[in-house]
Amino acid sequence: MRAEDRFVERLREMLPPDDAILLGPGDDAAVLRHAGGDGIATTDMLVEGVDFFPGEDPERLGRRAVSVSLSDAAAMGAKPRLFLLSIAVPADRDEDFALAVCRGAIARGREHGAALAGGDLSRAPCVFVSVTLWGDLEGAPLTRSGALPGDLLYLSGATGRAAAGLRLARDGVAETGFPEARELLDAFHDPEPRVALGLALSRQALAHAAIDVSDGLGTDAARIAYASAVRVVLERERLPIAASVQAAARRCGVDPMPWILSGGDDYEILFAVPEEAAASVETLSDLVTVTRVGRIEAGSGAVLRGASGDADVSTLGYDHFERPS
Amino acid sequence: MRAEDRFVERLREMLPPDDAILLGPGDDAAVLRHAGGDGIATTDMLVEGVDFFPGEDPERLGRRAVSVSLSDAAAMGAKPRLFLLSIAVPADRDEDFALAVCRGAIARGREHGAALAGGDLSRAPCVFVSVTLWGDLEGAPLTRSGALPGDLLYLSGATGRAAAGLRLARDGVAETGFPEARELLDAFHDPEPRVALGLALSRQALAHAAIDVSDGLGTDAARIAYASAVRVVLERERLPIAASVQAAARRCGVDPMPWILSGGDDYEILFAVPEEAAASVETLSDLVTVTRVGRIEAGSGAVLRGASGDADVSTLGYDHFERPS
Repeated sequence: MRAEDRFVERLREMLPPDDAILLGPGDDAAVLRHAGGDGIATTDMLVEGVDFFPGEDPERLGRRAVSVSLSDAAAMGAKPRLFLLSIAVPADRDEDFALAVCRGAIARGREHGAALAGGDLSRAPCVFVSVTLWGDLEGAPLTRSGALPGDLLYLSGATGRAAAGLRLARDGVAETGFPEARELLDAFHDPEPRVALGLALSRQALAHAAIDVSDGLGTDAARIAYASAVRVVLERERLPIAASVQAAARRCGVDPMPWILSGGDDYEILFAVPEEAAASVETLSDLVTVTRVGRIEAGSGAVLRGASGDADVSTLGYDHFERPS
Repeated sequence: MRAEDRFVERLREMLPPDDAILLGPGDDAAVLRHAGGDGIATTDMLVEGVDFFPGEDPERLGRRAVSVSLSDAAAMGAKPRLFLLSIAVPADRDEDFALAVCRGAIARGREHGAALAGGDLSRAPCVFVSVTLWGDLEGAPLTRSGALPGDLLYLSGATGRAAAGLRLARDGVAETGFPEARELLDAFHDPEPRVALGLALSRQALAHAAIDVSDGLGTDAARIAYASAVRVVLERERLPIAASVQAAARRCGVDPMPWILSGGDDYEILFAVPEEAAASVETLSDLVTVTRVGRIEAGSGAVLRGASGDADVSTLGYDHFERPS
């Protein structure tokens, strides 16, 4: 189990039950009971030098900070509604920098129906942006815990694009460096949260379980497996490989599979649906490309099934708290 | 106007109106409309080296982080209900450190009815703790903007205790250093939010305006003045001076008035009430000591009125963004 997940397990032991909290720490967002209906709340932070490069454009940073939370809302099937934004900046960044972060955040939120309600501004040794977002649930929330053996596993879009974009950014490849460079750099800097897909899955009650792929396909598949007490099987030949990822891998002279299986920050949705819902899922393709990538079986963990058998991919992903072994 | 307040003014210009936001950035918390009733939401962050000393005890840090948001809820007259907690720690601090922050936060929240619903954990070059808290409004919210000329001005407790505690902490004075040292160090490290007072003011509709004194009495008085378009008069001889603050000032060989007027982090409530409500306010003393400290007049700004006239105190306080002139 990843260090962050172990932390959450230990945290949950500290928490008494509360009538207003239908689902506490441990999923993409908390599920809350209001007098007027249920909702979700989620919080995420981005730290300079950890989650983004020093010198990042502040407006794009604001967009990305909100996108991360929008993606959590999407993975719960919620309709984003309001957010709070905290910004801390070092002394060499001024008020205009913080306002540009706000401008990007407000614009990104508005694209998905979420308005800025308030925030906090402070000093810090590095740039720090934190978003707390809440949204309304119109159907049941999409949690990580409902997958059943026999379910089919689907993925929106394709993973590995953000990891390829990160590699290009690190290598200093310009947006004009090669035809697919802009798409990959955008996937890393300004990811597109799958809000419409999540809403459709919840409204139509199609999915048994869902998660957004923020830390790597292997790690996030294993989270569904753990929460649902099942085995998640990713089928090697079904995994979508974006043409742009292929192109970047060729250019860098590397195998694209590590990007696809363990690259974080893709913000695609991985979800399990009962077999009889497969036809309905195919109709969601006008929202975003959706590909069947595997299945749910009895067992535990996440595996990649290929010609030579099953390989454990549960630990393939990004872990802030991993200690070098 | 303080840099943070100017920032908020500029931010407000970017924001379109939204039906769900009754009050956006610029008060102690946002006021939100839910189907089930109105509520408030507020977010605050604490940064190592800016808001607390490196090496701070993590459990006390968690308590303080929640207290800052509880104080904002108090200043709006809200009943705290739920919070999210984000923690970022450098590589030399482990999971146990973060769990201790959670433990303190959970305990502090519980004392005032607020439960932890979720959060985020990350790496950063220094410790960051961010709390987003929301609460329910049973009466109208206590904003900064309703004070009227003729209103009386009240303060809970006494200001300057946290600033005196900060001075003692900086000087390395132990809790046992002199009889009042523990009280002052506690006021700085583990302030007591005035939740019961805020709730009573809102439920009984006693106050025209309120703010929590987080950045200094002068600065926060000026915020009521600005939001209400009035002059806030602090009367020199009415200002409560805690015996502990007197003792610390004597010990340090300084005048206590700068602590009282410009020391931040006191988390007392400053509020304006119509003259006819004065008798009801006196009855709140079983919740916390409440002292009449001045009055509201026509005009602008915040002044300290003494034997030699009025002195402007609008800029006396802590400003993260103040540039040395």
